[in-house]
Amino acid sequence: MSEFRPADSFRSPRFAQLATFMRLPHTRDVAGLDVALLGIPFDGGSSYRPGSRFAPREIRQHSSLIRPYNPALQVSPFEVLRVADVGDVDVNPIGIEDTFVRVERAVGALLDAQVIPLCVGGDHSLSLPLLRAVVRRHGPVGMVHVDSHQDMWEEYFGNKYFHGTPFRRAVEEGLLDTKRVVQIGIRGPVYAEADFDFARRNGIRWVIV
Amino acid sequence: MSEFRPADSFRSPRFAQLATFMRLPHTRDVAGLDVALLGIPFDGGSSYRPGSRFAPREIRQHSSLIRPYNPALQVSPFEVLRVADVGDVDVNPIGIEDTFVRVERAVGALLDAQVIPLCVGGDHSLSLPLLRAVVRRHGPVGMVHVDSHQDMWEEYFGNKYFHGTPFRRAVEEGLLDTKRVVQIGIRGPVYAEADFDFARRNGIRWVIV
Amino acid sequence: MSEFRPADSFRSPRFAQLATFMRLPHTRDVAGLDVALLGIPFDGGSSYRPGSRFAPREIRQHSSLIRPYNPALQVSPFEVLRVADVGDVDVNPIGIEDTFVRVERAVGALLDAQVIPLCVGGDHSLSLPLLRAVVRRHGPVGMVHVDSHQDMWEEYFGNKYFHGTPFRRAVEEGLLDTKRVVQIGIRGPVYAEADFDFARRNGIRWVIV
Amino acid sequence: MSEFRPADSFRSPRFAQLATFMRLPHTRDVAGLDVALLGIPFDGGSSYRPGSRFAPREIRQHSSLIRPYNPALQVSPFEVLRVADVGDVDVNPIGIEDTFVRVERAVGALLDAQVIPLCVGGDHSLSLPLLRAVVRRHGPVGMVHVDSHQDMWEEYFGNKYFHGTPFRRAVEEGLLDTKRVVQIGIRGPVYAEADFDFARRNGIRWVIV
Amino acid sequence: MSEFRPADSFRSPRFAQLATFMRLPHTRDVAGLDVALLGIPFDGGSSYRPGSRFAPREIRQHSSLIRPYNPALQVSPFEVLRVADVGDVDVNPIGIEDTFVRVERAVGALLDAQVIPLCVGGDHSLSLPLLRAVVRRHGPVGMVHVDSHQDMWEEYFGNKYFHGTPFRRAVEEGLLDTKRVVQIGIRGPVYAEADFDFARRNGIRWVIV
Amino acid sequence: MSEFRPADSFRSPRFAQLATFMRLPHTRDVAGLDVALLGIPFDGGSSYRPGSRFAPREIRQHSSLIRPYNPALQVSPFEVLRVADVGDVDVNPIGIEDTFVRVERAVGALLDAQVIPLCVGGDHSLSLPLLRAVVRRHGPVGMVHVDSHQDMWEEYFGNKYFHGTPFRRAVEEGLLDTKRVVQIGIRGPVYAEADFDFARRNGIRWVIV
Repeated sequence: MSEFRPADSFRSPRFAQLATFMRLPHTRDVAGLDVALLGIPFDGGSSYRPGSRFAPREIRQHSSLIRPYNPALQVSPFEVLRVADVGDVDVNPIGIEDTFVRVERAVGALLDAQVIPLCVGGDHSLSLPLLRAVVRRHGPVGMVHVDSHQDMWEEYFGNKYFHGTPFRRAVEEGLLDTKRVVQIGIRGPVYAEADFDFARRNGIRWVIV
Repeated sequence: MSEFRPADSFRSPRFAQLATFMRLPHTRDVAGLDVALLGIPFDGGSSYRPGSRFAPREIRQHSSLIRPYNPALQVSPFEVLRVADVGDVDVNPIGIEDTFVRVERAVGALLDAQVIPLCVGGDHSLSLPLLRAVVRRHGPVGMVHVDSHQDMWEEYFGNKYFHGTPFRRAVEEGLLDTKRVVQIGIRGPVYAEADFDFARRNGIRWVIV
Repeated sequence: MSEFRPADSFRSPRFAQLATFMRLPHTRDVAGLDVALLGIPFDGGSSYRPGSRFAPREIRQHSSLIRPYNPALQVSPFEVLRVADVGDVDVNPIGIEDTFVRVERAVGALLDAQVIPLCVGGDHSLSLPLLRAVVRRHGPVGMVHVDSHQDMWEEYFGNKYFHGTPFRRAVEEGLLDTKRVVQIGIRGPVYAEADFDFARRNGIRWVIV
Repeated sequence: MSEFRPADSFRSPRFAQLATFMRLPHTRDVAGLDVALLGIPFDGGSSYRPGSRFAPREIRQHSSLIRPYNPALQVSPFEVLRVADVGDVDVNPIGIEDTFVRVERAVGALLDAQVIPLCVGGDHSLSLPLLRAVVRRHGPVGMVHVDSHQDMWEEYFGNKYFHGTPFRRAVEEGLLDTKRVVQIGIRGPVYAEADFDFARRNGIRWVIV
Repeated sequence: MSEFRPADSFRSPRFAQLATFMRLPHTRDVAGLDVALLGIPFDGGSSYRPGSRFAPREIRQHSSLIRPYNPALQVSPFEVLRVADVGDVDVNPIGIEDTFVRVERAVGALLDAQVIPLCVGGDHSLSLPLLRAVVRRHGPVGMVHVDSHQDMWEEYFGNKYFHGTPFRRAVEEGLLDTKRVVQIGIRGPVYAEADFDFARRNGIRWVIV
Repeated sequence: MSEFRPADSFRSPRFAQLATFMRLPHTRDVAGLDVALLGIPFDGGSSYRPGSRFAPREIRQHSSLIRPYNPALQVSPFEVLRVADVGDVDVNPIGIEDTFVRVERAVGALLDAQVIPLCVGGDHSLSLPLLRAVVRRHGPVGMVHVDSHQDMWEEYFGNKYFHGTPFRRAVEEGLLDTKRVVQIGIRGPVYAEADFDFARRNGIRWVIV
């Protein structure tokens, strides 16, 4: 189990060696892991500013500064759980629906191995295949969604899938138990009061801050 | 009236087309407008860091992200008011007094057409010609001035006009009803306690935050 | 005709007013134009670094520095030709094939009006719908292609359309008269000598520099 | 005494002349000064991001915006105290221990001349020679330490001196009266609960915020 | 004379101490100098991008990397000539004509002291007061002008003085012996062939590159 | 052998997965390798601008754009040689001499395993331990040194080791066969003609460009 602890900072400076999430070990062999950090370098669902395809690598670089012990909670997560960086999903940079299939398959494989996936995106459209993978195995789920937008639009330029629609699609596909969904941090401006109709109709609560 | 609504975002992506303030229509014909957004690309009154001559164009670019409905106030301003981007004042980049004449003339034309001007600067010296245009038509005005400086210096290197003097000039020219002027957000450091003398002598209130 | 000359720089500073390509007039009415500058803000065909969706707007901003007379050639293009900025194609940011349809339609409309389109992208996948629009009206064309890559790959992650395949698709669709095609500036590294097979088989010449 | 006031801003624009700390006069002759601003351009004790060797010069540039009167406290510090920019310590960019000797000597010379040194770093390892210079003349001192880390590690890659160890060394060298030391702002993450052992053992208080 | 050599780089690291041009000594006492480096932090004559008011300070910072011996010419200029950084002209950031008076006065004082001024701007309008100072003492001069523009326009928004007019004004004021003037590097685009008329009429030669 | 080819770009987008040099496989097991890419993230020998400690990671990121076939030379290096990214040397960020020991040991281990080390620095002081490792095994070597400086100074602030001295140390330690050393690209400015004395005395040739 010791090989799943972060790199010993007294042996290797933090800026040295290949960058992994929080300097955790990298492995493709997930057997025995408790948690897998999985990158999803995809921004093909962005309506405005792309670039989050580079996010998993950048987060690997910058998370080198994180240390393993939280003095407020008095816990060393990586002593308690076996955590590793399992690399990235091989997304299809040009195809959002093919990417969804690849993401659902990769996450599903982790779930089937009893490993908790902790995904690092990527744009918000990716929440849909993540929910599909989970729900297909465990049934509809509640959700605490922290965001400034509801991401429940109907479509965008005729596209059913982009970063503004994942939770409408999730409701339509029966992935969410809407009574147990709450959206926190919602704020405007939006296009019209009607933007909130879908959530209202489906009994989803939200908190404007 | 419908042509004065912002571009339909389901037809044109927000990053497409010529940039206008908040994606509003651009027109030079102000008849029938309620509010005109007017750029003033001038920084010749800056004592330290110039560059705000590029501000109207940059604000046009970045305001593409604004959406038309405010869910907290439950209002769609562009449904209630006819608002347009009427372009920029043709300032004189090298001459502050000539620029003041041009600004006063442009803003005055809007006022004469019963259009409310909403100006996007530009450096703070421009408040003086704006006040001149308004006061010449409506008489002295009160003012709520939100700033960290009073902008009531006497002069700067022998210049009566720059971004640190507009409100002293405004008082001297009788443009402000000083009993109804309040300056909010004033803070130091300044050069000396005497920097506040002009406001004190003229009965202007200010709030140090 | 005079309204299609660039803005008079002695009336309006170059950093003022809404940005158009080279400060040319903006119009949606193309009748009587000789040349139309048309933006195509699309980067959904990029395999590596997206962002060219913002290129048309940025080029509008920065081309304000261009002046209208070329002293080497002793020509003022905008005196000889009526040129205007006709805005952008309303692309589909999430859908490359739908975008191709929109681009072909917009460019075709210009061609039908006897206006020469001069397009400002956008990623290189857009060359395909441009060729389709031209060839459908004029038959197969020769091409001088200045690039460091041939953009003649077979596919990318199963996608037939992206910025590495437009000219293979063009050959397959019969859009190019391959005897009259030359590619200038081609250089490596590439993936294998076989990357050049398609051009070789089709009699396309290229110059490695 | 008047020569130690900041440059008269009505004579010289703030962006003009050689940059000194807060536009104060520069002198190497410290006789008669009350406070000396002293740069220490050294970052050889940084374990992660170097670059603070450029900090004294950058702070000189950017502090040009500071004005001499504080209206909240109603004080003009440079009227009350003779303050000057006395330049930088000539550090040894490659040698941390030689740099410590040079810093202690420079600061000691100021103390011997009855001038209060106000040092502008530079990385946090420099606190050790500063304490040495003071304590050698005045005996052990209390300390209010505002930081997010305690900087009381044992060593780093075998080095006793770097920006994570100065206060452990200071305690070991008897420079601090630990009963009168408080560290404010300490927060995680750290490496282990044991990181706090040294402070605990030595009766040093800290406040986690 | 030795005090006018650059700082000894074996005593002070190059990034340390107040920044002066090429690490030369700073003095206001010009007696005995051969060459004076004089900053002119003014950009009030810029028609497009201001900011060169910060240039003298930035050039001080970055010229720290220059070393004193030129191995190609086998000369150490600062051994042969007494050179110092004499600070900046106290320009008037808001007033171009007042700035011209200040520049001419400062440069004239150096000339009167038999010191060669080497000025670091600042925008190109400043060439006019420099020529005035020289010509008033020595009579009309020839000029080798390396630039991409002739800077011989008539005016700009009604202003006789800005960075596009200095050499037309210089000819009009009789400062240049036009037979001995050559402009190297001129290129387009410009506004019209007529832009070259003034030079043609006055017998000035130029080289388009 | 196939596992030492670069990642198959038709399976994984170039911006995905942990970054390695040129997307080569990462391994700590060097047996059977022909060439090992080894990072040395150390900048403690820099006299001016530090930061190259981050270079190996940044080069890993950006070299993702390199493809495996060179069409000019008609060679695929990674088909001919087994090449891998073997990670970084665990340098001592605060100690240059300890770092030299670590570098020499790491490089020596590769040499002993008959693997050609290809090192990615890091500042230029690191050439010294690299030469030591090679020469200790193979005897004095010739050298083609491409640089703008000779890096043959005597010392810097009393330090024998920094990025300006490695080749003087190398000559003194007998590591270089000076008859077979040539330095290409040398240019000024330098401090004095005497800067070239050491090379002259030792019969080293250099080319000023």
